[in-house]
Amino acid sequence: MAKELKNLTKRSENYSQWYNELVVKADLAEQSAVRGCMVIKPYGYAIWEKMQRQLDDMFKLTGVQNAYFPLLIPKSFLSREAEHVEGFAKECAVVTHHRLMNDPDGKGVVVDPEARLEEELIIRPTSETIIWNTYKNWVSSWRDLPVLCNQWCNVMRWEMRTRLFLRTAEFLWQEGHTAHATRDEAEQRAIQMLNVYADFAEKYMALPVIKGIKTANERFAGALETYTIEAMMQDGKALQSGTSHFLGQNFAKAFDVKYINKENTLDYVWATSWGVSTRLIGALIMTHSDDNGLVLPPHLAPIQVVIVPVYKTDDQLQAINTVVNPIVANLQALGVTVKYDNADNKRPGFKFADYELKGVPVRLVLGARDIENGTVEVMRRDTLEKHEAPLQGIEQYVKNLLEDIQQGIYDKALRQREAMTYRVDTWDEFKAQIEKGGFLLAHWDGTTETEERIKEETKATIRCIPLDAPDEQGRCIYTGRPSSRRVIFARNY
Amino acid sequence: MAKELKNLTKRSENYSQWYNELVVKADLAEQSAVRGCMVIKPYGYAIWEKMQRQLDDMFKLTGVQNAYFPLLIPKSFLSREAEHVEGFAKECAVVTHHRLMNDPDGKGVVVDPEARLEEELIIRPTSETIIWNTYKNWVSSWRDLPVLCNQWCNVMRWEMRTRLFLRTAEFLWQEGHTAHATRDEAEQRAIQMLNVYADFAEKYMALPVIKGIKTANERFAGALETYTIEAMMQDGKALQSGTSHFLGQNFAKAFDVKYINKENTLDYVWATSWGVSTRLIGALIMTHSDDNGLVLPPHLAPIQVVIVPVYKTDDQLQAINTVVNPIVANLQALGVTVKYDNADNKRPGFKFADYELKGVPVRLVLGARDIENGTVEVMRRDTLEKHEAPLQGIEQYVKNLLEDIQQGIYDKALRQREAMTYRVDTWDEFKAQIEKGGFLLAHWDGTTETEERIKEETKATIRCIPLDAPDEQGRCIYTGRPSSRRVIFARNY
Repeated sequence: MAKELKNLTKRSENYSQWYNELVVKADLAEQSAVRGCMVIKPYGYAIWEKMQRQLDDMFKLTGVQNAYFPLLIPKSFLSREAEHVEGFAKECAVVTHHRLMNDPDGKGVVVDPEARLEEELIIRPTSETIIWNTYKNWVSSWRDLPVLCNQWCNVMRWEMRTRLFLRTAEFLWQEGHTAHATRDEAEQRAIQMLNVYADFAEKYMALPVIKGIKTANERFAGALETYTIEAMMQDGKALQSGTSHFLGQNFAKAFDVKYINKENTLDYVWATSWGVSTRLIGALIMTHSDDNGLVLPPHLAPIQVVIVPVYKTDDQLQAINTVVNPIVANLQALGVTVKYDNADNKRPGFKFADYELKGVPVRLVLGARDIENGTVEVMRRDTLEKHEAPLQGIEQYVKNLLEDIQQGIYDKALRQREAMTYRVDTWDEFKAQIEKGGFLLAHWDGTTETEERIKEETKATIRCIPLDAPDEQGRCIYTGRPSSRRVIFARNY
Repeated sequence: MAKELKNLTKRSENYSQWYNELVVKADLAEQSAVRGCMVIKPYGYAIWEKMQRQLDDMFKLTGVQNAYFPLLIPKSFLSREAEHVEGFAKECAVVTHHRLMNDPDGKGVVVDPEARLEEELIIRPTSETIIWNTYKNWVSSWRDLPVLCNQWCNVMRWEMRTRLFLRTAEFLWQEGHTAHATRDEAEQRAIQMLNVYADFAEKYMALPVIKGIKTANERFAGALETYTIEAMMQDGKALQSGTSHFLGQNFAKAFDVKYINKENTLDYVWATSWGVSTRLIGALIMTHSDDNGLVLPPHLAPIQVVIVPVYKTDDQLQAINTVVNPIVANLQALGVTVKYDNADNKRPGFKFADYELKGVPVRLVLGARDIENGTVEVMRRDTLEKHEAPLQGIEQYVKNLLEDIQQGIYDKALRQREAMTYRVDTWDEFKAQIEKGGFLLAHWDGTTETEERIKEETKATIRCIPLDAPDEQGRCIYTGRPSSRRVIFARNY
């Protein structure tokens, strides 16, 4: 492992390759035998479990309940909502048969041609259609509203180019689908969930995000408004980290979901949907990690603290064990996830490199001399700084240090984003700057045509119109037409 | 709801119909638009979440970690293990294409014939094949062993006759897959996980189970030994509630997973797999519930205690609120899940019937007179008995009562099973008794032939050879050949 670590490509050499190698070397995920589908390994899955637990608690505090809807969607459902089918129905996995049979040649199995389905079924790329078809039976009166459901599940989109976590054919996510009596309530819910995502990103992932609105061109297929949180990776590219959609009455109309309102008249229900996925693990890696491996925020690290003993004799190990065991118990009592790695089959140097690679936020090293002196060597993974600390009170010291690290990597990511955010006012500046990466705050004339031309010429897309963008008169960077606020352009993942 | 409840079919009239109605009326699940696939509604899913949380903790205490493997399996993988393909590969969902296109007729979408996959993919009916194909890359030395992975996921088997929770085309489950250096360690792990399942069934589901071994005929396809927990439903039929398989080296050989052992020679890895599914919710319902609706064990009930105020004036409600609010807080501090339903839009009688239907274990009712007297009306759902209790100390009283109920419904289910378990020694007795239901302890000659004949003639299968079956010389109920212990016959779900 220590040797493999040395082989990790440096970010400055090839950021993309650094990422691909790190995901595999840190035991987070790997390619599977099925094109574009990944295996999420235990260490990677442990991060996802921490994300899930936290998000799930946050959703439930807003009144959301979990449920489960079918994996398969009848093909005809996809064409019910006209825009939705354009955006989603194309590259997907299609189930056409329901039986295999022994190959008449005696070799393995073949599809039984007799077992063709009457209507093909699609593996869900997202579940608006099947869920709104279900809500039709759940909602008839204003008393049945709101419906606030979420599901944690797998989805599939037949992507041509895939990268672990960032873009895979199958991925894990949550998708919330809410139904409301009024337009206002639905819009508020869409914004509420965007705020949940932003809070989660900032407080748990240590990921500064910009909240904004997508342009019509970048909107979810079938939505009236798509809200987004956008983050900047270390290479200056943007990563869309979560979206929340105000769907208006589009799906209610497509699936005929009406309710009797308080005025005793029939009306269509208002909708939102919102989701985040295992893509967030990609964002986590690309924002904080370095040439030595992962840097994980303490609030999501599967192991927050590792303790490694350094010893020559069994007696020395015994003495260290005696000191460490109560520290482990005390840390656990403080809610800290700690691993005491006194396994005999690996050298300390190997362990150090491995836990660095895996991004464990704090490492404590204890030797025989430390026991005598009542000290311990503390290393924080984010800065790689080592220092000595007294054993006395080490538990609270470590707990505080974890919070410092959490804040530290957030601040660092924020500084990085600010340093790479540019106000750009001429097209020449724009073209020059976009090559160097970063967020470009620029005026835009509000038309899809201009947006698409800029994308063709520079590969930059409008990431969002920030919710807090101040009014500012200016002229479109491309056409010179008038504009009343700046939007964020960037290249993106 | 109160009216609907009255319409619940009685168990004595039609047990099967009672079950089907109850699942829907209690808001647990419903059929979806996709044949054989269910929607798990929030109340049903909340039970599954409680089951998951508890099982997951128990798995992790044994060293198991979660991971995630692909939904889709290349068709050729299924035929690698000869017995496995016979048992599993036939009725399954087959993905043949990866793209839809606009219908040239302009109506909706059709499958793009150009987008045919080179090799068909199967939606996992179980994941041994894809996981062992992955383990090949994870294991090369004894130092890499054991591998102890579990995944929570959806699976699909194209069942012809489906029933909510009991048998559905898609269902949710966990599947553990472990790899070991020695035969003995793998066998011990298979038994260890069986014991975890039995503990969970008994302590959380209040479900008495019999631990046993499946006959060769009933074994998992590809296993050397299948361990099972078998439970009896109220109608005397058996329900297989969890299985743990010792797979020998079959999958290691099929996927070429070898390791260098401590003696420095190459050997195949030993395997187990084990799983429980949303079927457990069916077992839970059918074991404890009654003609008034669900009876849920307190350890898995989404709501353990409901408090309903009875009042005529707002002042009375205010007075009740003042008394109840601290009780709610105290119960929560004791770890009790409590709902105070002071909603104004439903009458108390409606609420009573609804919470009865939903199986909330304890109901507290408070009126103005109770406030004066310092008392509260307590109803336990399992017996439907009502009594008065002092408000003073009600929190600890309720907490103890929940444990009483948990034990009470376990004891009741155990008594029921014991009352319907028969030692049967002649074929005439056997044929007469099996019509009345129950577990039949009988001698069997150990041959698949006899087992199949008995099944043909009586629809009874051998549920298991109990692990604790005492040695006892006897003669096969069907052939009269010698037998050395009794096995359990029953009809089953």
